[in-house]
Amino acid sequence: MTIDTFDGTGVKPAQWNLDAIVHQLRVSREATHNIRHQGRVRELPSREALQTIVNGLSAVLFPTHYGRPNLTDESIDYFVGDTLNTTLNRLTEQVRRGLLFSADTDALDETELTHKAQEITREFAAGLPEIRALLVSDVQAAYAGDPAATSIAEIMLCYPGTIAILHYRLAHRLHRLGSPFIARMICDISHSLTGIDIHPGAQIGASFFIDHGTGVVIGETAILGQRVRLYQHVTLGAKRFPADASGALIKGTPRHPIVEDDVVIYAGATILGRITIGAGSTIGGNVWLTQSVPANSNVSQAQMRNDC
Amino acid sequence: MTIDTFDGTGVKPAQWNLDAIVHQLRVSREATHNIRHQGRVRELPSREALQTIVNGLSAVLFPTHYGRPNLTDESIDYFVGDTLNTTLNRLTEQVRRGLLFSADTDALDETELTHKAQEITREFAAGLPEIRALLVSDVQAAYAGDPAATSIAEIMLCYPGTIAILHYRLAHRLHRLGSPFIARMICDISHSLTGIDIHPGAQIGASFFIDHGTGVVIGETAILGQRVRLYQHVTLGAKRFPADASGALIKGTPRHPIVEDDVVIYAGATILGRITIGAGSTIGGNVWLTQSVPANSNVSQAQMRNDC
Amino acid sequence: MTIDTFDGTGVKPAQWNLDAIVHQLRVSREATHNIRHQGRVRELPSREALQTIVNGLSAVLFPTHYGRPNLTDESIDYFVGDTLNTTLNRLTEQVRRGLLFSADTDALDETELTHKAQEITREFAAGLPEIRALLVSDVQAAYAGDPAATSIAEIMLCYPGTIAILHYRLAHRLHRLGSPFIARMICDISHSLTGIDIHPGAQIGASFFIDHGTGVVIGETAILGQRVRLYQHVTLGAKRFPADASGALIKGTPRHPIVEDDVVIYAGATILGRITIGAGSTIGGNVWLTQSVPANSNVSQAQMRNDC
Amino acid sequence: MTIDTFDGTGVKPAQWNLDAIVHQLRVSREATHNIRHQGRVRELPSREALQTIVNGLSAVLFPTHYGRPNLTDESIDYFVGDTLNTTLNRLTEQVRRGLLFSADTDALDETELTHKAQEITREFAAGLPEIRALLVSDVQAAYAGDPAATSIAEIMLCYPGTIAILHYRLAHRLHRLGSPFIARMICDISHSLTGIDIHPGAQIGASFFIDHGTGVVIGETAILGQRVRLYQHVTLGAKRFPADASGALIKGTPRHPIVEDDVVIYAGATILGRITIGAGSTIGGNVWLTQSVPANSNVSQAQMRNDC
Amino acid sequence: MTIDTFDGTGVKPAQWNLDAIVHQLRVSREATHNIRHQGRVRELPSREALQTIVNGLSAVLFPTHYGRPNLTDESIDYFVGDTLNTTLNRLTEQVRRGLLFSADTDALDETELTHKAQEITREFAAGLPEIRALLVSDVQAAYAGDPAATSIAEIMLCYPGTIAILHYRLAHRLHRLGSPFIARMICDISHSLTGIDIHPGAQIGASFFIDHGTGVVIGETAILGQRVRLYQHVTLGAKRFPADASGALIKGTPRHPIVEDDVVIYAGATILGRITIGAGSTIGGNVWLTQSVPANSNVSQAQMRNDC
Amino acid sequence: MTIDTFDGTGVKPAQWNLDAIVHQLRVSREATHNIRHQGRVRELPSREALQTIVNGLSAVLFPTHYGRPNLTDESIDYFVGDTLNTTLNRLTEQVRRGLLFSADTDALDETELTHKAQEITREFAAGLPEIRALLVSDVQAAYAGDPAATSIAEIMLCYPGTIAILHYRLAHRLHRLGSPFIARMICDISHSLTGIDIHPGAQIGASFFIDHGTGVVIGETAILGQRVRLYQHVTLGAKRFPADASGALIKGTPRHPIVEDDVVIYAGATILGRITIGAGSTIGGNVWLTQSVPANSNVSQAQMRNDC
Repeated sequence: MTIDTFDGTGVKPAQWNLDAIVHQLRVSREATHNIRHQGRVRELPSREALQTIVNGLSAVLFPTHYGRPNLTDESIDYFVGDTLNTTLNRLTEQVRRGLLFSADTDALDETELTHKAQEITREFAAGLPEIRALLVSDVQAAYAGDPAATSIAEIMLCYPGTIAILHYRLAHRLHRLGSPFIARMICDISHSLTGIDIHPGAQIGASFFIDHGTGVVIGETAILGQRVRLYQHVTLGAKRFPADASGALIKGTPRHPIVEDDVVIYAGATILGRITIGAGSTIGGNVWLTQSVPANSNVSQAQMRNDC
Repeated sequence: MTIDTFDGTGVKPAQWNLDAIVHQLRVSREATHNIRHQGRVRELPSREALQTIVNGLSAVLFPTHYGRPNLTDESIDYFVGDTLNTTLNRLTEQVRRGLLFSADTDALDETELTHKAQEITREFAAGLPEIRALLVSDVQAAYAGDPAATSIAEIMLCYPGTIAILHYRLAHRLHRLGSPFIARMICDISHSLTGIDIHPGAQIGASFFIDHGTGVVIGETAILGQRVRLYQHVTLGAKRFPADASGALIKGTPRHPIVEDDVVIYAGATILGRITIGAGSTIGGNVWLTQSVPANSNVSQAQMRNDC
Repeated sequence: MTIDTFDGTGVKPAQWNLDAIVHQLRVSREATHNIRHQGRVRELPSREALQTIVNGLSAVLFPTHYGRPNLTDESIDYFVGDTLNTTLNRLTEQVRRGLLFSADTDALDETELTHKAQEITREFAAGLPEIRALLVSDVQAAYAGDPAATSIAEIMLCYPGTIAILHYRLAHRLHRLGSPFIARMICDISHSLTGIDIHPGAQIGASFFIDHGTGVVIGETAILGQRVRLYQHVTLGAKRFPADASGALIKGTPRHPIVEDDVVIYAGATILGRITIGAGSTIGGNVWLTQSVPANSNVSQAQMRNDC
Repeated sequence: MTIDTFDGTGVKPAQWNLDAIVHQLRVSREATHNIRHQGRVRELPSREALQTIVNGLSAVLFPTHYGRPNLTDESIDYFVGDTLNTTLNRLTEQVRRGLLFSADTDALDETELTHKAQEITREFAAGLPEIRALLVSDVQAAYAGDPAATSIAEIMLCYPGTIAILHYRLAHRLHRLGSPFIARMICDISHSLTGIDIHPGAQIGASFFIDHGTGVVIGETAILGQRVRLYQHVTLGAKRFPADASGALIKGTPRHPIVEDDVVIYAGATILGRITIGAGSTIGGNVWLTQSVPANSNVSQAQMRNDC
Repeated sequence: MTIDTFDGTGVKPAQWNLDAIVHQLRVSREATHNIRHQGRVRELPSREALQTIVNGLSAVLFPTHYGRPNLTDESIDYFVGDTLNTTLNRLTEQVRRGLLFSADTDALDETELTHKAQEITREFAAGLPEIRALLVSDVQAAYAGDPAATSIAEIMLCYPGTIAILHYRLAHRLHRLGSPFIARMICDISHSLTGIDIHPGAQIGASFFIDHGTGVVIGETAILGQRVRLYQHVTLGAKRFPADASGALIKGTPRHPIVEDDVVIYAGATILGRITIGAGSTIGGNVWLTQSVPANSNVSQAQMRNDC
Repeated sequence: MTIDTFDGTGVKPAQWNLDAIVHQLRVSREATHNIRHQGRVRELPSREALQTIVNGLSAVLFPTHYGRPNLTDESIDYFVGDTLNTTLNRLTEQVRRGLLFSADTDALDETELTHKAQEITREFAAGLPEIRALLVSDVQAAYAGDPAATSIAEIMLCYPGTIAILHYRLAHRLHRLGSPFIARMICDISHSLTGIDIHPGAQIGASFFIDHGTGVVIGETAILGQRVRLYQHVTLGAKRFPADASGALIKGTPRHPIVEDDVVIYAGATILGRITIGAGSTIGGNVWLTQSVPANSNVSQAQMRNDC
């Protein structure tokens, strides 16, 4: 009936002045921000729950790769259906919590919030086959684009780019359906796993491939066409942040690049501002670019010198 | 009463020549370094324990964001006090283990070591409200500095920079209190989670903001003022490592940059050596800088050429 | 007897149109790739299993650092032997699964596949003492090369470079012994933990040191000599990918750099193509290099301008 | 991202005719009882949750015995308060689910049900100090009544009677407060752990002691006074079950024994029906008793014969 | 990467003379029985696996009681089908292991064994709807037979008799299909949970009810008709064990009672030998019976005396 | 970084008057017993730890039955040695905690206590091969004595008697070596699993067999010879408890039966007091016996009457 860890701590208990510290922390909390919002306690979405949910959705989309071994023709749909049901119930709860942080849900009561969360989740579920088709195009682009790739299975299990794009495509749909907080958390989970930081608001076409990937950053208002290929450390960022009269940043304006179809951007390139990279262009490694380039451009960095 | 995993391994047991390999590994261990130090077996700090400890401290500092849902006004202090107590007991044990690796604790016996670990932990605990205040300034700086941020909750749950700074501020305090090994492990945990590598010895002022963050490196002797803002891939590193007459590196000399108040450093900038970036300066993306610049400097990279 | 999570979901169950979605996903699966290969269902290797296996091998190689506290002279070999046996049994199963994805194992039946997996694992086990010797040289190189390092224990517990090289050396051996898929997965686990992306096909000599490490990429056909030192964001990549007449990439040709003994490459340097960096050279930070340099070269980047 | 167990099943997947069996089971379910009640889906209480709740309450009542080691004077109330809060929140949810199975809650809507569950839980919480006092009297009775007992700690950690009475006293309070289903489940958990089967409806006075205990049965309408002592296999049962005109059993009538103060009942005695065992009586081992006995009776079994 | 428990053991490591003890245990093992049988290593069935399997089968049979909350009309069959598939795969592996201990499988090779295990499991699966119907009759008998029962849910969640009969009915089917070892383990799991010990070889008709149950024993060759009701401590055992000429027990002969339809046996009755209890009889508490009784008998114990 | 369970509780947080209840419980604690003893906080032994320890010892004694599948000749000793070492370290800690509750250890300081715990554990370890030999005799007695037993494996995996005797033999050795509290807890763990209650102080010879076992009670000072066989519900108990002048029970006097070699006692027999059952005797079911019987006695119960 005991709930301790049984190996002991190896150290005798000490006095910590708990009362004083607890009191000071309470004072500190009261002096700053507070979880209450308009008199409503807001339960935060759970990162753990979202990880479980993404795992469940991955299993639903690609049951033989991300699901369970030994699935057979007669059993696979039972697995998919049961995992889908469990996962959607969990997602509804997280979407509901996330809605508490949207300005436009302040007017909803508990029941309306839950209904809205169910609607978003139901629409999200209906779009899963479409998301699957996009992801298949991404995986095929990776296989075609990397001479080191030896099989589809390798791309699905060993490429951080695959993991990042999978998270992004799920998150982007949630973002568009009105669940931006949840979407953002899913992308941050992916960022932690892969080093690839894609904002869920970005728009990215089919057959997208990121190789190696660590350090890639794609900003909130970026727009990428089809068949775009990126390497590690590529930044598609904002150049400057317009502020309003009071000095506060204006949120939401388009400020990240537009990358048209069939563009390749090599490692370390930094592309900033609402510029356009014309279709079919190649941007070389380490390039620093803040102006638009026409279609089929080939941009590269100045040479280095050898001091030897 | 059985302790096996019950699904079997799918493969019949094989012979591995265990005796020979075990013997060779023993010989190899004896030929190299050894965990014994001055006749004392040194138990290593545990990474898992430190992760649990940082989670506990996060919950103590921000119980509604990193603690538990459904905390109420009457219950929150019980949660904070109980979590604090458990966490400090665990921390004491890890600090004690870490002290075994400090040169200046060789003279202490077991009881003295434990007392020293308790003293460090007690002083650390007393400083938690102050650390909380710093972290609040950091979160507010993020909200003010990123147009994509929509709420404080988003910054606390979705920004790797927040996680990295939280780990750093806890670790830095432990570093200063005489527990450098534990501090280093906490920063490495953060590095693995976020891709942001801050040495616990670095000194960083309030209202610090790192956006995106992957690839940021801040060296051991770096000094950052207040309201500094960094983007991904920024390095604040050493230029060269002075060696002594025998060729061994001299440890501990100041060799990383000083970044004064209100400096912004954009993605990919590399700043090396004990130079000073004057207050209010802006360092552009991908800049390579090894010389001091005066206050309010605006440093940017040479242009790229378009070969198209 | 119930298997539910007992805290409930906080949300009433909803209707999701499961039947329709499950059906569409089945159609989508049938339209694309399939886990069956030549009529054989291929069980995928498990990432979790490989993480457990790498943990087990780490404990076997360095029992006092990665194994268990409180090991004594009389107990250490029992621990090593038991962990080794368990780990090799698990590895055999994963190697077996990986072999199902090799072209040259199509002709083998189940029993032959298992025997081949056991052979590979047995040979791998025999090489562990040699791998340990290499890793000891790497750790010593880190201690000698970083002025911030204060002990061997710190290098083993706090340096992502150590973790990455450990995974790489285990994976490279498996790659050479004919288990490339498993090797690739192990390197991707390391990539996720450390931000360091080393292809298991790369060849790397003793006393290798990577500092900080986030963003390092080392390609499949790269060859590194002894005593090479790398910093964060260094890319040893391919410049272009030769395609065959049909436009498909030719896989496997040498296309990454050769880095000779005693070379140091600083943060952010990008080195592309089958070029050679002569022994003893130093490549400066952010350098972009696509041509061979002779021994003892000292390559650095052009200067920045200050617009202030 | 995979969720399988990684050791495999050792057996190739087989065909099971899943569709047919699933269909037949659905038909079988539809033909019999159904979880829906008056159009309302009733979520069942969770046995796991109740085990966690009883563990939590035990820790709250006796923190040094059933709580956590290393509690200190400054920390113990934080632990008690936090555990109490968590446990009461969990209990409310289980009480709410249990209420769905009470006839008299059919008229309540969701919000009223939750309020009723909170009221019951709040009243239950208020009675915990009183329950603690009863349990202290029970433990002291055990220490006084068993010559093999060497310490209070032994009685709290090693006596199934202690565990059974603790469960009973918690369950009985819930039973009286209007949560009979939850009460019954708690008593059945205790039955499984100890072999002692006490119905939560029974009324039992202070200083109650059960030694050994396996096989003890105490029926729903039994009434026991103070300082009663029982040994293993004692049954306080019903003799016959009155049925109504239709042959259905009449539920709830008093049909179990009344045992007055200071009665001792030895191993294997079976006492049936609404009879009274007078105060101070002793009932011998294996006795079969279906008639009342006056105060200070001494009942024993007939002798055995030796056929040797 | 460390696998230790991080709280330490609180005790310094000691010397245990491991080598000597390990050696003596090896000698002791070699002197006695051995897991090898006819040159074949026999993997033992796993108790944990069987517990998981019984939980899975319970969920399949009664998904709303033993499965998962929040199942809906559209999701329940997915849950049942997926759980059934997973559970049957696991059961096959355990049946296969159990077959290694049957005399009549010595001649089978690995592949034949697996096929036989699959056949047994497939036939077992086909009988699940029939088992469900029997269990429904048992639950209804409990509701009709116990005045304390208030709902079907209470009988399914709080009655050890329900748990014991569920295990027995699953085990008996496996016993009959040729998997006696697995059947025996399932009954022993039930025995540990409920104190009710039913041999899987016993034959028991529909509408069976055991109240309280602790101490009930039903032997291997017992035969019970329909609508039998038992109370705690009832033994249906063997009177004597016939031995062969060499003094060894003869295994398998009918030696336990036959209990015909509609018999009630009260607490503590002991009925031994291959006797018949005629239909409709009532056997009183604590009765010791070794001779057959005709239909509609009413057997009770001699009276006690009161020495007061 | 969050530590909550992510599914929520389904119920809004409520007010519980935590402060008042926590205060009353503190008052209640202070009024009664206290964990402090002679100014020393006494950490209680952990039931969970002891379960893990018994599992470890079982695996050490019978590695192929209670250890791990797939052990081979080359690996088994590594497994045994490593498990033994881990288990003995854990046992030392529990023995140390248990010693805090012995009257004769009040004079020992922390270091002496630890040394005493290590001594007891070391001696216990040295006796393991002897315990194994006794257990082998017990298992063989079960196989010889039960016609339903079909293999040694069945007896080791499916007989609660085997589990109970294994716990008893380990506990009895600890009891004799001076660790009675730990011994008592181990026997109570066994009691909960099997329904068999053997006091660790009892003395029991080789080749001991308990069939079915639920409800068996063997008292502290009982002495059993070799080849004794017991069935369910057998009590070897005390008849009366002598009290001293003040009315307090006198602890430790011999008060339970002596059962000589080759005695069989059938189900439900109750044998009380310091009497002797002569060698070779048979005691019938349900017999109530409080006087010694000579060797080769055959005791049975009086007949029942049939009221039909």
